[in-house]
Amino acid sequence: MTQHQLTTQIKKKKSFLCIGLDVDLDKIPPHLLQEEDPIFAFNKAIIDATHQLCVAYKPNTAFYEAYGLKGWKALERTINYINANHPDIFTIADAKRGDIGNTSTMYAKAFFEDLAFDSVTVAPYMGKDSVEPFLAFENKHTILLALTSNEGAFDFQTKTIDGKELYKQVLETSKTWKNAENLMYVVGATKAEYLADIRNIIPDSFLLVPGVGAQGGNLQDVCKYGMNTHVGLLINSSRGIIYASNGTDFALAAANKAEELQKEMALILNK
Amino acid sequence: MTQHQLTTQIKKKKSFLCIGLDVDLDKIPPHLLQEEDPIFAFNKAIIDATHQLCVAYKPNTAFYEAYGLKGWKALERTINYINANHPDIFTIADAKRGDIGNTSTMYAKAFFEDLAFDSVTVAPYMGKDSVEPFLAFENKHTILLALTSNEGAFDFQTKTIDGKELYKQVLETSKTWKNAENLMYVVGATKAEYLADIRNIIPDSFLLVPGVGAQGGNLQDVCKYGMNTHVGLLINSSRGIIYASNGTDFALAAANKAEELQKEMALILNK
Repeated sequence: MTQHQLTTQIKKKKSFLCIGLDVDLDKIPPHLLQEEDPIFAFNKAIIDATHQLCVAYKPNTAFYEAYGLKGWKALERTINYINANHPDIFTIADAKRGDIGNTSTMYAKAFFEDLAFDSVTVAPYMGKDSVEPFLAFENKHTILLALTSNEGAFDFQTKTIDGKELYKQVLETSKTWKNAENLMYVVGATKAEYLADIRNIIPDSFLLVPGVGAQGGNLQDVCKYGMNTHVGLLINSSRGIIYASNGTDFALAAANKAEELQKEMALILNK
Repeated sequence: MTQHQLTTQIKKKKSFLCIGLDVDLDKIPPHLLQEEDPIFAFNKAIIDATHQLCVAYKPNTAFYEAYGLKGWKALERTINYINANHPDIFTIADAKRGDIGNTSTMYAKAFFEDLAFDSVTVAPYMGKDSVEPFLAFENKHTILLALTSNEGAFDFQTKTIDGKELYKQVLETSKTWKNAENLMYVVGATKAEYLADIRNIIPDSFLLVPGVGAQGGNLQDVCKYGMNTHVGLLINSSRGIIYASNGTDFALAAANKAEELQKEMALILNK
C-alpha cells in the first residue's frame, strides 16, 4: 500500500486508528484457550469486529515469538488473513529490528516478502547502513523509532548531541538516506508538545503514535501538533481495545472501544 | 551458564571463539538443499566439526526469520541440539531486540525460556526500562549494543552527547541498571583502539567482538586493548568460518578455519 492510498483509506473510514495485536495468552478470554490456535482465533475475532473502524493492524512480534513455533505460525496466519480479506488495511510488523546491512536485508525479506507486511518498525542505533536495506523495498515502509513513549526515552533519545536532541538528529539524518520517502516514524504520544518541533523537521511523513490512552497521551493534543494536510498520523491503541472484555463478548467490547476512538477521530477530521 | 563458567571453558579449550551461524540458503553447499531441513543439516555439521574449537555459537535470528516457519523451526532445532549435546557451549541469540517493558519481557521469554539461549543481543535506544526486563532473568546474559562494527556506527554512536560519545554514555548509564552484572556488550573490532577507553568504563564485562576477519579487525589488537584478567572477550567469526568451502568438505573446511583462529587465541592466552 502506498502512503497516498493510506490517506485515502483514512478519509474514507474517517479513522486513523491502528489496533495493536499484542496477544498474551494470560489475558485473552479463557474460553479461547480450548481452540486449536487461540492466538489466531482471538485475532480473527478482533479483526472481523473492528476492520471498518481502523486503517491499520500492528502485531508486536514479541508476543508471537514468546510462544515459539506456535506463535510464529499464528503471526503468519494473522497477516495472511488480513491480506486475503482486507486488502484496504495497512499492516505493521512491530518488530523494532536493525542490524548490519546484509542482515537487515534478511529481516526485510522476513517481513516484506515472507510475511508480506506493508511496513516494519526499525531501531536507528546502528545508523544508515542498517536502515537503507529496508528502504530499498518498493511500496514498503520503514517506521523508524524516533521518540518512544516509555520512561527510558529520556536515557538517550532526549539527550543533546551536537546541540540537538538525539531523536531530532535521527529525524534529520534519516532524511538524507536513500529512498527516505519510504520512511515513517514512531513518536510517542506522551510528549505531544514535542510534535510541533518534529513537524518542522519532517512535515510530510506519517507518524505512528503509540501511548494514547493506556500510556497517558491525549488524542486532541496529538492531532493539534502532529496532523498535516494528508493527516499523516496513525494512532495506535492495543490493550485498551483488545482487552476491553475478558468474556465471550470480547470482540464486541473491542469494537465499542475502537468506535469511541474512531468517532473522536471523525470529529477531528471533519473540522 | 555463568560468566565464571564461560571463563573456565575459555581456559580449558584455549579459545574465546564464537561462531556465527548466519545460514543463507544461497550460500550453503548445494547438495544440502536436498535435505528435509537444510538449515539444520548445515548447522549440525558445522557444530559437530567445530564445537571443540569454540566456546560459543551465535545464530543471527534474521537469517532464520527470513525463511518463515521453516526458519524458526531450524533455529529451535539448532539451539536444542547444542543444549542437548554440548552443554559446555555458551549460546547467543543475535536478535538485537528492545521494546517497552512488558514487550521486552515477552522477548526475554522467547529467547531465555522458549528457546533456552544463554544470552541475547539487545539495542539500547529505548533506554533502561527496555533492557531491565532482560536483566531480570537469572544466569542469563544481555549483550547490549555499544559500538557496532558497521559504517553506520558513526551516524549516532560516536557523536558527542553531553561531552561524551553516545556509546560511552550507553556503557556508563547501563552500569546503573538493576542486575547490571548480567550485562555484556557488543564492541566492533574495526575500532580496536577504542577498546582501551571502553575498558576504563567497564573493566570486568565480557565483550562480544564481531568484525575480526571479514570486516577488517585484527585479533592481536583487540586482545591487546580488550582482554582483562578473566579474558572477557568473545571474538565472533561467521562467514569466514562457515562458508570456507561450498563443497561436500564444508564442515572440515570450517573446522580448519576455526582451528586457525583457535591456535592464534591459544598463543595469546599462553602469554
